Amino acid sequence: MASSLPQSLESLIKNLSHLPGIGKKTAKRLGLYILKQDDLYSNELAASIIAVKEKIKYCKYCNNFTESDICLVCSDKSRNFSLLCVVENPSDIILFEKIGFRGIYHVLGGLLSPLDGVGPEDLNIELLLGRLDEINEVVVATGPSIEGDATALYLSKIIQPLNISVTRLSRGLPMGGDLDYIDEVTLDRSMSDRKSID
Amino acid sequence: MASSLPQSLESLIKNLSHLPGIGKKTAKRLGLYILKQDDLYSNELAASIIAVKEKIKYCKYCNNFTESDICLVCSDKSRNFSLLCVVENPSDIILFEKIGFRGIYHVLGGLLSPLDGVGPEDLNIELLLGRLDEINEVVVATGPSIEGDATALYLSKIIQPLNISVTRLSRGLPMGGDLDYIDEVTLDRSMSDRKSID
Repeated sequence: MASSLPQSLESLIKNLSHLPGIGKKTAKRLGLYILKQDDLYSNELAASIIAVKEKIKYCKYCNNFTESDICLVCSDKSRNFSLLCVVENPSDIILFEKIGFRGIYHVLGGLLSPLDGVGPEDLNIELLLGRLDEINEVVVATGPSIEGDATALYLSKIIQPLNISVTRLSRGLPMGGDLDYIDEVTLDRSMSDRKSID
Repeated sequence: MASSLPQSLESLIKNLSHLPGIGKKTAKRLGLYILKQDDLYSNELAASIIAVKEKIKYCKYCNNFTESDICLVCSDKSRNFSLLCVVENPSDIILFEKIGFRGIYHVLGGLLSPLDGVGPEDLNIELLLGRLDEINEVVVATGPSIEGDATALYLSKIIQPLNISVTRLSRGLPMGGDLDYIDEVTLDRSMSDRKSID
């Protein structure tokens, strides 16, 4: 960065450039933008950064983000409390909320990965097993990776014996995707998982 | 945004999405990233946002960003104080510093634009005229727009009579550009401004 910049502007740009996907150039643009705005915006932005770190905790039932002891999903009485969706991270919940999922969630906080030394005791599985009393179906919504599949398999092995159905997200062609650009593993999976047209 | 998000996280995402080039999706990613970092980073980021607004003023000579009365360029004795580069915005100075320009600057704070009601009295021209005593050359480094050209022409008309040479940035093909993708106005200019090969 050029030496003609005042130190406080340099610091802001440096801090912004630590954000994911924000390079030096974008950080400079954002820094100059913040400098140009009125104090109201910059004060609010700074306050909201502090607030998010101070206020956000994890739900004592499901480990979702929350500002109280119990998250907005777990405290929503209109939910279907017999359908539980297991996710890796709290941020995954945002995605399922967008598609209108109306069950409840459980956040594992990671995926099984023996190579990285992550075993079942490192995930929130104990907490999950304590929540299964009223559950009819557990959807293991882990990502389509080796770790995601291993975690789903592990959970199904310990939950299915409890007479609870364990499902996972379907694999296949992404909607709107062009066949030319689909990788072979996905294409192979979409062939072996093919469904009858009804 | 999904209703399952705690209010403080929603606010942070909303504030981040006001930044230029940051959409809802990127703002969410940045917000979650900030939430995941330790307090040290978030506190520093917030503090630097506040600091930049509190500390940055404009140089009393050239209107560049500064934290003191006089900016880092104007107070640098090793500069060539007879070569003055006129720019539209303080942020333009960063670009010229990058290419190693060693003269001094003057920030106009805008460009002449009769259609938008911006006249000479709206720009920092009075201040500029008071700085020309020791100047041999004024480079008017406004952008290649109608307003940029009009401003350059106006300045040259009032400064050239003072026996100071007034120049502007050359126009032509951008380095590394493919002829196929050059617009006609630029190509036309590069033809009429052609130079002998020496």
